[in-house]
Amino acid sequence: MNVEADLTPLRSALEDAEADGYLIDDDASDADHRYVSGFTAPDPYQTLVTHDGVHLLVSGLEYGRANAQASVDSVSRRAAYDYQELIGEYGSYEGTVRTIAAFLADHDIDSAAVPKTFPTGTADGLREQGISVTVETEGIVTEIRSRKTDWEREQIRATQRANEGAMARAEELIASAEIDEDGTLVYDGDPLTSERVKEAIEVTLLRHGCGLDDTIVACGADGADPHDRGSGPLRANELIVIDIFPRDKETGYFGDMTRTFARGDPGAEARRRYDVTHDAYEAALEAVEAGVTGATVHDVACDVIEDAGYETLRSDPSTNTGFIHSTGHGVGLDIHEEPSVSPAGGELESGHVISIEPGIYDPAVGGVRIEDLIVVTEDGYENLTDYPIALEPSSE
Amino acid sequence: MNVEADLTPLRSALEDAEADGYLIDDDASDADHRYVSGFTAPDPYQTLVTHDGVHLLVSGLEYGRANAQASVDSVSRRAAYDYQELIGEYGSYEGTVRTIAAFLADHDIDSAAVPKTFPTGTADGLREQGISVTVETEGIVTEIRSRKTDWEREQIRATQRANEGAMARAEELIASAEIDEDGTLVYDGDPLTSERVKEAIEVTLLRHGCGLDDTIVACGADGADPHDRGSGPLRANELIVIDIFPRDKETGYFGDMTRTFARGDPGAEARRRYDVTHDAYEAALEAVEAGVTGATVHDVACDVIEDAGYETLRSDPSTNTGFIHSTGHGVGLDIHEEPSVSPAGGELESGHVISIEPGIYDPAVGGVRIEDLIVVTEDGYENLTDYPIALEPSSE
Repeated sequence: MNVEADLTPLRSALEDAEADGYLIDDDASDADHRYVSGFTAPDPYQTLVTHDGVHLLVSGLEYGRANAQASVDSVSRRAAYDYQELIGEYGSYEGTVRTIAAFLADHDIDSAAVPKTFPTGTADGLREQGISVTVETEGIVTEIRSRKTDWEREQIRATQRANEGAMARAEELIASAEIDEDGTLVYDGDPLTSERVKEAIEVTLLRHGCGLDDTIVACGADGADPHDRGSGPLRANELIVIDIFPRDKETGYFGDMTRTFARGDPGAEARRRYDVTHDAYEAALEAVEAGVTGATVHDVACDVIEDAGYETLRSDPSTNTGFIHSTGHGVGLDIHEEPSVSPAGGELESGHVISIEPGIYDPAVGGVRIEDLIVVTEDGYENLTDYPIALEPSSE
Repeated sequence: MNVEADLTPLRSALEDAEADGYLIDDDASDADHRYVSGFTAPDPYQTLVTHDGVHLLVSGLEYGRANAQASVDSVSRRAAYDYQELIGEYGSYEGTVRTIAAFLADHDIDSAAVPKTFPTGTADGLREQGISVTVETEGIVTEIRSRKTDWEREQIRATQRANEGAMARAEELIASAEIDEDGTLVYDGDPLTSERVKEAIEVTLLRHGCGLDDTIVACGADGADPHDRGSGPLRANELIVIDIFPRDKETGYFGDMTRTFARGDPGAEARRRYDVTHDAYEAALEAVEAGVTGATVHDVACDVIEDAGYETLRSDPSTNTGFIHSTGHGVGLDIHEEPSVSPAGGELESGHVISIEPGIYDPAVGGVRIEDLIVVTEDGYENLTDYPIALEPSSE
């Protein structure tokens, strides 16, 4: 799927490490593996990057599909290396290791570099078969895939389109709810709960071919804890944070967006926090371009928020209120990936896809967060998100 | 969550291996880790099983939740072992390894057994810190969790209840569809496609708190390939295989069920295959009890199917038609886990939760599969599935 992926930095690292190849032994839940192999399978398979090719080792069950779908130079099935016979002679564990060793021998690999997450069972087994196994500790594949190809940007944009549909549905529910006498939002005669809005979000995403494990619809004090998913009835005159991070079931690419709404009047302090967060969001976006560090962009967001009189983790590392997370993170086949837009964030590069998501939190007031997904360009950024920013929800 | 889990076999293995403890370094997508820690987190955390306790090492972000939710003897946060300082001095990789080494030292661990999937980066790093790391290759934790506690059976049964609701919705759509002149099923004016039925299944599961990555609604020749998820319009007079394997989002336990339906008349041969499959299903169920091997149960299903004149992988290992998979598999925190009800299947034990799912396939006729989820008992089994078995769909 990633025919445009440029593995040159990985091959240079192999040369530096005097390794004959880079071996991954994992299923496709590992984003690096999915990226390099351009393939997904529920059970572990092996991908070998050599100096001149990418080679897969798969079960007989996956052989046809791997040949049809994976954009690699060769696909081998385990049976070609006498897998069943080796299992019969050495048992499941050592038989599997010997099959992988035979696959490596077939590609003239005496020494393999592996990712940090490579299974120790396979590493130690291959070592017993006389193959040198060294860990690549820098995460070069993760670094390579932080720079998105044009095809990848399109996939992320497509997931973000589905996300916009889901956010619109959530906003519509909140905007069109009645407000009962004790301030609870009511829709179709029943309290409009966090759970109901989440279900509407998930159903909308499902209809767009996306899934998600989690979504945040957090009202009042719930919204002041960035890790609280929210629960129970939504209320008028309080801030409601909605953070949706769906994944396209087919391509595996994530989207990510947050909006904060309030029905009625959340109060002057909440409105001020909304405006300051919006200013921080705009200032951070303004600061983004290739060559600027993620740390600098984070500092810009902190400046705006501190200047308005709120704490940040920069002004007080132990604060539980104010701006208590980083400004953003890379998004791709993982929901959190390189680069970081935080105090530790290195240089942004053209093609990096990042979230920009400042926020201000306090249990006494609630939470505000505004988040878009953007791609870094040579002279700025392109916003992959097309969704209005407004505290008052609209049903249009 | 698994307060009843009995880790005695693991501790015996530790003694045999002269290891001080068993260390897992993974996120909670690893079912063994989720089981032992009774905890889930999106990022890697560490669980240490010692001779007298279970101990977690988590980030500060997860510390409060781990203390509240994990049923372990202690929870430590990385900061207690100077994580930030070590990262600052040694970088992210070695700093993390040194933090884990300090956690191990705190629990007097000089030698650790680890699962096959343990990250080589951590294993080699700990070895450099002087800790002996050996791989436990038998999969003892996987074996332990194949015997479900009462609590786990309840969780699986609950997921299977949601599954029954989803199957009922799918059956209802097929039963109440119109049949247009070319035999296509039509619902609400549009062709009733595999995709529409899958969406209805997923929405129903979502409303029951379950998710799923995949579901099978496969008509005609599609249904003859057990790995084909199905696509396009469903047709009358053809077999339609529906296989649903949802996972409860909260507990992580799977359900699994398959039914085969046909509107109109799929023909005498298809009806005969349905009856033979049903007979094989009943015979296999009849054979299940503690002490019988999975291989024996599989043989019983093969006997029925071969006696009726169809091939199995037992009668012809290279066949592409007939009964071309195993009779069943364990189900729990993984959708496919121990034990196996196949030629390789060992002794069934009380508390094993397994699927029984014989089938007969041929592209010229279509596919039939009937699957229930059961728990093995001392003198038979208890069926965790409560859903009628009938070829003709009913909308009641």
